[in-house]
Amino acid sequence: MDTIEFAVLGTGGIGRRTLEVSTQKDELTPVAACDRHGVALDPDGLDVEELLDATEGNIAGDGTGDTDARTDGGAAVERGDGVKQHGADAGIVASTQGQRVADPIGEIVDASDRLDAVLLALPNLEHDFIPRVAERFADAGYEGVLVDVLKRSRVIGMLDDREEQLVDAGITFVCGAGATPGFLTGAAALAAQSFVEVESVDIRWGVGLKSGYEDNRGTVREDIAHLDGYDMETAREMSEAEIEAVIDEHDGVIEFEDMEHADDVLLERAGICDAEDVTVGGVLDVRNDEKPVTTTVTVTGRTFDGERATNTFELGDETSMAANVNGPALGYLKAAVRQNRAGDYGVFGPAELMPGF
Amino acid sequence: MDTIEFAVLGTGGIGRRTLEVSTQKDELTPVAACDRHGVALDPDGLDVEELLDATEGNIAGDGTGDTDARTDGGAAVERGDGVKQHGADAGIVASTQGQRVADPIGEIVDASDRLDAVLLALPNLEHDFIPRVAERFADAGYEGVLVDVLKRSRVIGMLDDREEQLVDAGITFVCGAGATPGFLTGAAALAAQSFVEVESVDIRWGVGLKSGYEDNRGTVREDIAHLDGYDMETAREMSEAEIEAVIDEHDGVIEFEDMEHADDVLLERAGICDAEDVTVGGVLDVRNDEKPVTTTVTVTGRTFDGERATNTFELGDETSMAANVNGPALGYLKAAVRQNRAGDYGVFGPAELMPGF
Repeated sequence: MDTIEFAVLGTGGIGRRTLEVSTQKDELTPVAACDRHGVALDPDGLDVEELLDATEGNIAGDGTGDTDARTDGGAAVERGDGVKQHGADAGIVASTQGQRVADPIGEIVDASDRLDAVLLALPNLEHDFIPRVAERFADAGYEGVLVDVLKRSRVIGMLDDREEQLVDAGITFVCGAGATPGFLTGAAALAAQSFVEVESVDIRWGVGLKSGYEDNRGTVREDIAHLDGYDMETAREMSEAEIEAVIDEHDGVIEFEDMEHADDVLLERAGICDAEDVTVGGVLDVRNDEKPVTTTVTVTGRTFDGERATNTFELGDETSMAANVNGPALGYLKAAVRQNRAGDYGVFGPAELMPGF
Repeated sequence: MDTIEFAVLGTGGIGRRTLEVSTQKDELTPVAACDRHGVALDPDGLDVEELLDATEGNIAGDGTGDTDARTDGGAAVERGDGVKQHGADAGIVASTQGQRVADPIGEIVDASDRLDAVLLALPNLEHDFIPRVAERFADAGYEGVLVDVLKRSRVIGMLDDREEQLVDAGITFVCGAGATPGFLTGAAALAAQSFVEVESVDIRWGVGLKSGYEDNRGTVREDIAHLDGYDMETAREMSEAEIEAVIDEHDGVIEFEDMEHADDVLLERAGICDAEDVTVGGVLDVRNDEKPVTTTVTVTGRTFDGERATNTFELGDETSMAANVNGPALGYLKAAVRQNRAGDYGVFGPAELMPGF
């Protein structure tokens, strides 16, 4: 594969780490990045190290509390609480490569004819924010790949509504390409290959967040929204003290069952099973860095010869959620670039990029 | 995806079971099949049940002892010893759908303009048999997918030598798409996504072959070629009694280390690690049906943030090797059809169809 020139929208946790990981990957050249206040563009490739130094502590959230961009199964890497936001002089504008502009995303849209792929590492500030960003690229006639790392089901439907426009432009959009749903639904899709019928997919993640806790308060808040008696609205309204009280009640270890993740709809989309056959849960320990449980995907199904069995995929406990977000995001991006170059456009979940079921 | 009309060359174990599995898969319509003596063609779809009844016990081997087509990590499903061959009146010619023809493959080549995909479930009778079959399709201007389930490295190189011809015709060739290397290197490619550097891939299979032993003598023979002190030539020359003596020496449980499989070259091709970092081994128990060890893929690597970890993929012990050959073969076939329809041609290993590393 030839070099892939790509842009990263957002230089919070995911955006920054994607830039960092890309320096360790052949074929990937980051040529543009933006945050809320600025943009850096260099067709010869960004100086990632300088940019990372300048954007340290940059968080793209705007305080709306919509943390759709949390993509790592528990350990937030982008969030809406903005605790680390350093104001208008921080971030890309502080880089020697950066310029302050009124519309940073617009600058990248304008330069998109030279891009093969764009990673949307933005929080979904409003529910349709990511879909609207996709529209801007389509309107500009961008022919290439867009990848997001969201995990809420509703965004996928909104992208589907725009699929014709995306296809007309020549865009291959991969939705939810981080750890979960991306990595783990991909694993489920592969594990399903032994079977002619999948009975159940169980995705269970573990996150140890002691040293990362301060950086991930927004995520913990979002996770609380998944607990019985809470929802996104109530969690958004809670004070820090109320959040702490919930954590204390659970002795720092919060267990989640039947989370509303996009995993279910993405596996159904890929034809692997019904959404209702997918369960997602996890355990978050904010007082230890060790994972309280091993992140595991189990797929139970029936083989063509009538046996019932369970295939299992386990992530090593030493793999950080960051590693499990950024590797797959770039892996799916590469696969999508190949697809896009061949002229295969539209909206895809990660599991649809796997061997067919 | 629209319906995929496909042909199966060979109605030994893999060919027959692929036809069977395809009846349980949406989108797949088998329209042609052949064996050594005959061909069955029906653009509206074959009557698989009738064909399976007619071809029961059909083995495509010719007694040369070249068992390259054994593709399941230990339990042969095609082999060269022909123990079940029932002569020229058996197989497809015994089906009401079959016709005796001098050149069954040629008949399918002639009808290939109506095919989306062809599964080559043939033993690699001579070393370049499969590559030569591919050439015949290319010469006929076939635009579509070819999939084999071989596992010897050398065939891949021979296909690469013909890549230009395949690309010119419009062929997408997926090589080695069965259980191993196909399924298990695909799993390794996915498991690698947590890492920026893969240190080692260890593929270990278990096969219990008590009730299947009589049907799989050819494989056991090939497996013996992997033992210290044996090679393909010596194993080919051994009498049945000598084979039995080796099995007795091992009390029916034969362990294999550092097998020459295509897994290593396919993972290197996909850029995941060096071939030398891949080890393949397994345990074959010919006196029990239970697997002596669980089939496991472990991938150890380094994350972008400096951790070392191991991700693991395990197949449930109840999944037969047949299930693990045929599901992935058809899964990769579907993925390749999508690729082919988009105009992406050439020779690919299964791991190259996964998210990029």
